[in-house]
Amino acid sequence: MTDTVHDLIIIGAGPAGLTAAIYAARYRLNTLVIGPDIGGTVTSAHLIENWPGHKATGMEIMDTFVQHVKDFNVPILTDDVKKIEKQDDLFIVHTGKDIVKGHTVILTMGTKRRKLDIPGEDKFSGKGVSHCATCDAMFFKDKDVAVVGGSDASAMAAQVLSQHAKSIKIIYRKAALRAEPARVKEIDDNPKIECIFNSNVKEIHGDKTLTGVKLDTGQELDIQGLFIEIGGTPITAMAKELGIELSDTNRIKVNADMSTNVEGVFAAGDITTGSNEFNQIVTAASEGAIAALSAFNLTRKKK
Amino acid sequence: MTDTVHDLIIIGAGPAGLTAAIYAARYRLNTLVIGPDIGGTVTSAHLIENWPGHKATGMEIMDTFVQHVKDFNVPILTDDVKKIEKQDDLFIVHTGKDIVKGHTVILTMGTKRRKLDIPGEDKFSGKGVSHCATCDAMFFKDKDVAVVGGSDASAMAAQVLSQHAKSIKIIYRKAALRAEPARVKEIDDNPKIECIFNSNVKEIHGDKTLTGVKLDTGQELDIQGLFIEIGGTPITAMAKELGIELSDTNRIKVNADMSTNVEGVFAAGDITTGSNEFNQIVTAASEGAIAALSAFNLTRKKK
Repeated sequence: MTDTVHDLIIIGAGPAGLTAAIYAARYRLNTLVIGPDIGGTVTSAHLIENWPGHKATGMEIMDTFVQHVKDFNVPILTDDVKKIEKQDDLFIVHTGKDIVKGHTVILTMGTKRRKLDIPGEDKFSGKGVSHCATCDAMFFKDKDVAVVGGSDASAMAAQVLSQHAKSIKIIYRKAALRAEPARVKEIDDNPKIECIFNSNVKEIHGDKTLTGVKLDTGQELDIQGLFIEIGGTPITAMAKELGIELSDTNRIKVNADMSTNVEGVFAAGDITTGSNEFNQIVTAASEGAIAALSAFNLTRKKK
Repeated sequence: MTDTVHDLIIIGAGPAGLTAAIYAARYRLNTLVIGPDIGGTVTSAHLIENWPGHKATGMEIMDTFVQHVKDFNVPILTDDVKKIEKQDDLFIVHTGKDIVKGHTVILTMGTKRRKLDIPGEDKFSGKGVSHCATCDAMFFKDKDVAVVGGSDASAMAAQVLSQHAKSIKIIYRKAALRAEPARVKEIDDNPKIECIFNSNVKEIHGDKTLTGVKLDTGQELDIQGLFIEIGGTPITAMAKELGIELSDTNRIKVNADMSTNVEGVFAAGDITTGSNEFNQIVTAASEGAIAALSAFNLTRKKK
């Protein structure tokens, strides 16, 4: 452990964390970014068409963010954070390799996607298997696709897909959708969408790309796209330990300035209740910018 | 007037409106964008260093947004909107040239900057005169600069500048800052910042770039940068006419999903109370994305 006390430690290096770093650099905060994988989960996206002005792979877009942070000489430490403690006015952050101290912290650890844990899921990820209808629906024009899940988000994914695809099956393990009633009616009325209840996807198969799935009922579906909409788990265990309030959906409750209930701790990106819980690169980046300004304002007060 | 009813009419073509258009296109909403100047006020910025991943002029960055919208074949009409009426479930939008109809509307008209209306203000805009300390402070490393205005935003601009500049004068027409008390104390304690009260800037002069200003007290200041932080006026007259609730600061009050109190009307960008009222390209773009999703959800219900 060194004696350096950073103005700001950003935990997580996805769109929220990197944008917070860009803004913090411009406020000349002594900032450190720590994340297990630089760029975050976005880097696995094969093509992103809704980051304004730059259509590219997730990796390419995040590379531009990382370069931007590096141009401002903000250090990025590739490491896991194990624990965050508050000691008086300081935050002590334990990583696998080091212990660092900061006046303020921005938490941007994002969410861990829930998986089906079935054969073919990883193999066809980005090759027919997707986790974001808003992002990828356009690639399935006139194709047959399926959505896994029965939540409101799943039903909405089916609706987004019905703007592009030829047919959409919703595969759900229970007997009825748990989406909001108005949306269930819209789904019922949509001739392109059909629900297959009491069923689970057992296997995903294909060649170079996905060609079909097998259900646990024995039913086989010939489809070119499978949208897995079974939610994700915000990575909030450390936040909880620090005494930070979480929502029913296990996200960090944030105020308009991205502050949390613990003074000095801010949060941004998919991990928060912000942006109407619409998880996109642009919403995460925006929250990161707002959090950095708030951290700047607080560090001014602390000094 | 044609019989076409658009799913969505976006009024304003800055970062918020163009991002809303990108998202709306991906939801396959029949969308029309109407704005008096494509790209919005951002296009006047000489260098933008905080749009993640792409450092360029305002014009260059907004060109990438416009191209993105055009790639999705969303029409952009360069025109002023004169009036918006609600007739039953439809919105009738009167432009200078046409009358168009929509099921939903997103308002992204932004703000009109307040001006000092003094000689040199326009001439040195982007050549020493700036309206965004967060954006431009870095260009004034070790320089002498001044901030005009006594609000909390003005004081914060001075603090941001003190991270870079050699000296900062706050020029304010009244006898004391009206920033929040804690910030006033920080300003008092900051050796780089000095307040000049009961004074107005009367004239801005320079050569190729700004070299100084003259105050109405006769005082002359040799400075290289002048940050005009006297606020802006949200362009909300039409919104008010439509019955939309405004905040004390004359911004459109928005909910988390960017909806307003009038069903079918959403808002995004500098014109709203969203994003903690931090006006940046990235926050405006984020609000545009959220508003487009909300408009999509509502049009599904209306059909």
